[in-house]
Amino acid sequence: MVEVVSDLIKKRKMLELSEYFSDLNSVDIAKDMVDLKDEETVLAFRILQKDKAVEVFSYLEPQMQEYIIQTITDSELKDIIDKLFLDDTVDIIEELPSNMVKKVLRNTSKEKRELINQLLKYDENTAGSIMTIEFLELKESMTVKDAIKYIRCDTLDKEDVDTCFIIDNNRKLKGRLHLKELILNNEKTFIKDIMDRNVINTSTIEDQEIVASEFKKYDLTCMPVVDKEDRLVGIITVDDVMDIVDKENTEDFQKMAAMQPNEQSYLKTPVIDLAKKRVIWLLVLMISATFTGSIIKKFDDVLQSVVILAAFIPMLMDTGGNAGSQSSTLVIRGLALGEIELKDYLKVMFKEFRVSLIVATILASVNFLRIYFLEKTDILISLTVCLSLFCTVIISKVVGGLLPIIAKKLKLDPAIMASPLITTIVDTFALMVYFTLAKLLLGI
Amino acid sequence: MVEVVSDLIKKRKMLELSEYFSDLNSVDIAKDMVDLKDEETVLAFRILQKDKAVEVFSYLEPQMQEYIIQTITDSELKDIIDKLFLDDTVDIIEELPSNMVKKVLRNTSKEKRELINQLLKYDENTAGSIMTIEFLELKESMTVKDAIKYIRCDTLDKEDVDTCFIIDNNRKLKGRLHLKELILNNEKTFIKDIMDRNVINTSTIEDQEIVASEFKKYDLTCMPVVDKEDRLVGIITVDDVMDIVDKENTEDFQKMAAMQPNEQSYLKTPVIDLAKKRVIWLLVLMISATFTGSIIKKFDDVLQSVVILAAFIPMLMDTGGNAGSQSSTLVIRGLALGEIELKDYLKVMFKEFRVSLIVATILASVNFLRIYFLEKTDILISLTVCLSLFCTVIISKVVGGLLPIIAKKLKLDPAIMASPLITTIVDTFALMVYFTLAKLLLGI
Repeated sequence: MVEVVSDLIKKRKMLELSEYFSDLNSVDIAKDMVDLKDEETVLAFRILQKDKAVEVFSYLEPQMQEYIIQTITDSELKDIIDKLFLDDTVDIIEELPSNMVKKVLRNTSKEKRELINQLLKYDENTAGSIMTIEFLELKESMTVKDAIKYIRCDTLDKEDVDTCFIIDNNRKLKGRLHLKELILNNEKTFIKDIMDRNVINTSTIEDQEIVASEFKKYDLTCMPVVDKEDRLVGIITVDDVMDIVDKENTEDFQKMAAMQPNEQSYLKTPVIDLAKKRVIWLLVLMISATFTGSIIKKFDDVLQSVVILAAFIPMLMDTGGNAGSQSSTLVIRGLALGEIELKDYLKVMFKEFRVSLIVATILASVNFLRIYFLEKTDILISLTVCLSLFCTVIISKVVGGLLPIIAKKLKLDPAIMASPLITTIVDTFALMVYFTLAKLLLGI
Repeated sequence: MVEVVSDLIKKRKMLELSEYFSDLNSVDIAKDMVDLKDEETVLAFRILQKDKAVEVFSYLEPQMQEYIIQTITDSELKDIIDKLFLDDTVDIIEELPSNMVKKVLRNTSKEKRELINQLLKYDENTAGSIMTIEFLELKESMTVKDAIKYIRCDTLDKEDVDTCFIIDNNRKLKGRLHLKELILNNEKTFIKDIMDRNVINTSTIEDQEIVASEFKKYDLTCMPVVDKEDRLVGIITVDDVMDIVDKENTEDFQKMAAMQPNEQSYLKTPVIDLAKKRVIWLLVLMISATFTGSIIKKFDDVLQSVVILAAFIPMLMDTGGNAGSQSSTLVIRGLALGEIELKDYLKVMFKEFRVSLIVATILASVNFLRIYFLEKTDILISLTVCLSLFCTVIISKVVGGLLPIIAKKLKLDPAIMASPLITTIVDTFALMVYFTLAKLLLGI
C-alpha cells in the first residue's frame, strides 16, 4: 500500500491518488502515511478531502502531526483545528513543543481556546483528562420535539455517541436518554418522562482505571462526568476506555517483569530510556540475590563434602520460582480484575496450600523416579533433593499467593510481587531448606 | 448491602426491599444477590419489577441462574426468556445442564428458538459466537421517513446501539448510518444518499481476538458480521469486545507464568483444576532445568577446587533470568498489540544488544565494586563473576528479545516464551560461560 502511494506521488498522479484514498478508511490512510517521506506525507495529506484530512490528521503519529503543523499555512491549520474533536486537539497540544502550541492556539477560535485550556488543567490519569466536552445535552423541561429541534440546530460537531444527557437549569445531571427514544416517542412527550434517571457517572478527579472498571461492570459506551457540584462537564467514550485498558495492562506486564512502566511503544523508545527503565530493578534484585549466595557460603562445608548437591541447585531454584510465580500471577490478575479482594487472603492461602500439596507431590515423585531410578543417585541424596523440592513448592505457592495481597494492603502495586521478586525470595527459602535437610539426612 | 437485603427478606419487609432495589442498578442488584442463600435469592428476584428482573437475571452467576430456572414456574421463565437479549440467552444455555436447556427451550417462542440454534452452531472464539442478531437494519431504498416508521414498528427489543446497518434486497451489507442522521436529515432524503458506505465488517468465522483489535484500531462501538455471501447476519457490540480483551489479557498473563489458560475466576476454580493447569509446565521446566544441573556436574572439578564459586550461581542465574524476561515481556506485549511485527526481528535484536550493553556494564561494575572492594573477594574470582555477569546479561537480552518472534514465526503463541522458559534457557548459558571463564581465568 505504501508503495502505491509513494509511487503515485513520485509520478505526480494526484487524481489517481485521490481516488485511491477515497476508498480507504482514515485509520488505514494514516497507517499508509507512516512510512512516507515527510514532504510526501504533506503532499498526500493536501490531496485528501477536507473532512477526511481532519480524521486522518488525528490518527497520525505525533512527529508527523508536528511536521504538518509546521509546514502548512495558518489558514489550512485553522480549517483542521476547527473540525478536530476537542479531546483530540488537547491530546495533540500536549505532545507539541511550545512554539508549535502557539501556532495552533493562534488558529483556534477564542471559544474553543477556552475549552482547551479548561481540559488541559486536569491531572493526568483522571477522568477529567480523558473526557471530551462535546456531547449532546438536553434539558428536563424539553419535549421530544424541542429536543430534536435543538439537536438539529446545534452546529458543534459532537462525537458520535448514542446517548443524550439531561440536565436541569443549574446544569446538574438528571438523567440519560438513548437517541432511539427520540425516534420512538411522541413529539409532545416530555424528556423528563422518558429519561432514565439511573445514571452511572463519575467525577473529574476520579482515577481513569476505576472509570475503566465501571465501564466494564455496567457495559457502558459512554459515561457522563460531573464536577464537585454535580454539574455535567463532559463525557468519556468507550474508545478512550479501551486505550486505557490496553495501557494499564501493558503497565502491569512491564511491572511484573521488573521494569518501570513506559508509555511509548517498544520500537519507538530510545535505547537509553529502555535501559533506564530496566536497570534499577535489575540492580535491586541482583543485590537481593546475594543473600541467597551468602546462604551457600554459610553452608560451604556441606557443599565441600558432597559437591554433587550443587548440581540440583538450579532445578530447585527454578522450580520454586516458577511455582511461586504461577500463584502470584493469578492473584495479581485477580486483584486487578476485582475478582479477589483483600478480605479473601485466608481463602487464597488455603487454596494455594491445597493446590501446592497436589503439585508438590507430583513434582517430587517424578523427580525421585528420575534421579534415583534413572540416574542412580544415592538414595539419601535423592531423598534430600525430593523432600526439599516438596517443601519449596509448598512454601513458594503460599508465599506467592499471599505477597500480592500484602502489597495491596500496604498500598503498593501488587504487580511488583511478580516472578522476579518472588523468585529471589523463594530462592532463599529453597536453599535453606535444601542445606538443612542435607545436613540432617546426610549427617554432615 | 447484602446484609440489608438479607435482613429485609428475613423480616419479610417486601415493600421496603422493593423500594431499596428500585434505586439500584441491575448490575449492583445482581452483585448483592451473590452472597444470599438460594431461597432468599429467589424471593428477592421475584420482588423485582419485570424488566429489571430480566436485566438482573442476565448478570447473575451461572449457578444462580440455574437455580432460578429450576425453581420458577414455566410461565415466569417464559416472561424472562422473551425479554432476554438473544446473545445473553445463548450464553446462559451454553452453561446449563441439558435437562435445564430443555426447560428453557420449551418456554421459548419458535422464532427465537431457531435463532438460538443458529447462534449455537458457531465455533467458540469466533465472531459468530459473540455476535447478536438483534440489530437495526434498514434498506437502501428507504427514505428517512420510512426508516423512522420502520424503527417505530419493530417490536423486537434491540441492543441499545447507535448505528443502523443498511442492506440491499439480497441482504448484502451496503452501508451504515448513525441514528443521529435520522434526526438531522430531511424526511424525504433517501437512506442510500446519507449512509456511510465505508463499513468495517467481519465474517462469522473470524477469530474474536482479531475482531477486538479491529475495534481498537477503528474506535468502533459496534461492527456488522457478514456470512460467506456478504449477507448481514449479526453485529458485535463493544461491551462484548471489552470482555474479550480482558479474557485474552488474562490468558496471556497465565501463559507467561507457565500455566495453561483458565477461563474461570480464581476463587471459583476448583483446587484440582488449578493444580492441573499448573503442573504440566512445572514438570516440563523441572526436567529442562536438569540440563543446567548436568553442566554443574560436568564442571564439578572446577567447583571442587574453588567451592566459593557456587555462592555466585544464584545471583548469576537470577540476574540473567530477570534480564531476559524483561526483553521477552516487552516483545511479547509488542507482538500482541501489533506494535512489533515479524519483519522487525533485526531491529529488535540490535535494540536489545545496545540496551544490554548499557545494562550489563552497570550491573557488572556495581557487582565488581561490591564483591572485590566490599567483600574482599579474590581479584580473579571477582573478574570471573563480573565478566560472566556481563556476558550473561547480553546473551539473555538478545535471546529474550528474539525467542518470542521465532515462536510467532513458527505459529506458536509468543506468550510461552516468557519468564519461566527464558529463565531455564538462560541458566544454561549463564553457567557455561561462568565455568568456562573460571577455567580460563583461574587456570583450573
